[in-house]
Amino acid sequence: MGVKEVVERHLSSWMKEEGPEGDAVLSSRIRLARNLVELPFPRLAQEEYLKRAFNAIRQATENAALEGLGELHFLSLAETPPLERSVLVEKHLISPEEASDVRYKGVILTEDETVSIMVNEEDHLRIQSIRAGLNLESAWETANRLDDFYESRLEIAFSEKRGYLTACPTNVGTGLRASVMLHLPGLAMTDQVRRLVAASGQLGLAVRGLFGEGSEAAGNIFQISNQLTLGHTEEEIVQHLTAVAKQIVQQEREARRAVQEQARLKLEDRIGRAFGLLANARQMTASEAIQLLSELRLGVVLGLVKGLSLKAVNELMVAIRPSVLQKIMGRELEPEERDIHRAALLRECLAGAST
Amino acid sequence: MGVKEVVERHLSSWMKEEGPEGDAVLSSRIRLARNLVELPFPRLAQEEYLKRAFNAIRQATENAALEGLGELHFLSLAETPPLERSVLVEKHLISPEEASDVRYKGVILTEDETVSIMVNEEDHLRIQSIRAGLNLESAWETANRLDDFYESRLEIAFSEKRGYLTACPTNVGTGLRASVMLHLPGLAMTDQVRRLVAASGQLGLAVRGLFGEGSEAAGNIFQISNQLTLGHTEEEIVQHLTAVAKQIVQQEREARRAVQEQARLKLEDRIGRAFGLLANARQMTASEAIQLLSELRLGVVLGLVKGLSLKAVNELMVAIRPSVLQKIMGRELEPEERDIHRAALLRECLAGAST
Repeated sequence: MGVKEVVERHLSSWMKEEGPEGDAVLSSRIRLARNLVELPFPRLAQEEYLKRAFNAIRQATENAALEGLGELHFLSLAETPPLERSVLVEKHLISPEEASDVRYKGVILTEDETVSIMVNEEDHLRIQSIRAGLNLESAWETANRLDDFYESRLEIAFSEKRGYLTACPTNVGTGLRASVMLHLPGLAMTDQVRRLVAASGQLGLAVRGLFGEGSEAAGNIFQISNQLTLGHTEEEIVQHLTAVAKQIVQQEREARRAVQEQARLKLEDRIGRAFGLLANARQMTASEAIQLLSELRLGVVLGLVKGLSLKAVNELMVAIRPSVLQKIMGRELEPEERDIHRAALLRECLAGAST
Repeated sequence: MGVKEVVERHLSSWMKEEGPEGDAVLSSRIRLARNLVELPFPRLAQEEYLKRAFNAIRQATENAALEGLGELHFLSLAETPPLERSVLVEKHLISPEEASDVRYKGVILTEDETVSIMVNEEDHLRIQSIRAGLNLESAWETANRLDDFYESRLEIAFSEKRGYLTACPTNVGTGLRASVMLHLPGLAMTDQVRRLVAASGQLGLAVRGLFGEGSEAAGNIFQISNQLTLGHTEEEIVQHLTAVAKQIVQQEREARRAVQEQARLKLEDRIGRAFGLLANARQMTASEAIQLLSELRLGVVLGLVKGLSLKAVNELMVAIRPSVLQKIMGRELEPEERDIHRAALLRECLAGAST
């Protein structure tokens, strides 16, 4: 089996799709925060209550299969090796917090990893549904079905007045967070990111980097999400973020066009150099790789890179992350070894391409 | 005709050879300073005397052909377009000073450009003979024959006591300067250049960068030459510099071996990255190009670059110089245009290679 096949095998199937507006949108995600009645929120709960919630959710999940989603697999994080947990974090299937203190924590996954439900993270249940590209409505539909499923099997804390009760007040109400992962090299090159962040804030949206709050926008990847969950219906939240994301995508495309017209040579030079380094380096850190892959992704979208699909770049953007990389290589690696294997992986996967 | 052929056509034939110790020695050069009797040295001479020297030397050169060297072509620099003069400078056939104030200045060239004789530079005659690799003896033999030739046709200033009389006292005596152009990336990487410069000074040798006095050692290229011309025979000077150059070559090879053993990965990474940038950039300055080509040259010598000959890299190291590049492109170019054409030339010439 070649490296490309090994890489594919270790990535969630949705990561390999392009999805709507795939030139600028990597993925869409819906998260619903839900809690069980009569049990304290996980962060305040004694072990006994954590255990009760954990077991109740596990039991409710057992032998469950939803139409079109397949079987739900319950994973106890305490029984999951640290490397596997880091892989889950790097694939955005669980949060870094969920991976660190693992007592009575779990994650429920579908085979294709478009669904991941965190158990006993900030809330008892955090139902997440993911899609490639801009497709919040479809993600919402799936999350909604999962919500119905768990409501039919568990007693979920809900107040007629305030809606779903959650550990953090910002989640009370719908408990819904919709987010979109955007690739915005055009806006970054034309210095419009600051403006975007300010405008998003005014629209009640938050902008974050690739790995959530406080993380830098490595590779010009930005995550945009709603800040408030109260006072709007789920449909309104989804529609609002979708509309804003579409506008940002338009702005990004215009920025790319502007750069192509006004600084085409500089753009081609940047993309050519990024490709040259990715295809020839012998050691490369994850942060250099993500930055260069961002340039390369733009090159693929603009047709400036031959012999390489957008899907392949999307895959590489995940495959080069430290834990995913170790998983692909089949063993734990020292940081320096990782840099070597990362460079080798990139070289092999870019072998047929050119600028 | 492809770019590679066009490049070849514009380079001196000796530049395309590898020559002895070609892994570390680019070229060897002998220069003899000679002056005509009864005429002041050029820098102090009024126009009338410059003209007399110029005409006398032109006359002596006309219709001259030496066995194995072919015809001697006399070029009046005042009648040579500025771009052509810059090309001569970049090919090290004339000095920058010779190219700037061109009244009654000339250069005499053989077809293969292994001989270039500057007329009315610091001295009336500066006979230069060039060889690829380390081959001072052969260069000396040719210079000697040219010296005999001009002595048979002109009255050369010579004192039994002091030897050949020259404008600068450091050249009095034999009037001979022997120099070797070395490529020393191994010594540079292992921080041994400072030591080399100090040691050379103690041996009566001077170390300079690629473009003579005061120029930086761009691309880890160093020129080593004798400082004094008095008190030693020509043979002694040539033998001494040859012996020192051989020692430096040994040290350079050891440094390369040490880097390969102790930092092989770092070395391969540097060479891979240099190749990746050279083969994919869309604009590149001459100074970036020479630095990267230096790394690439080392890669070729060490067998880390496939599909590329040392000859090809040697050619590129000259072809990317601003004026030579314009000559190859067949027209004058703005600096930014040059950077574009330079990158395109490199890309085309490196198309079949890989690391």
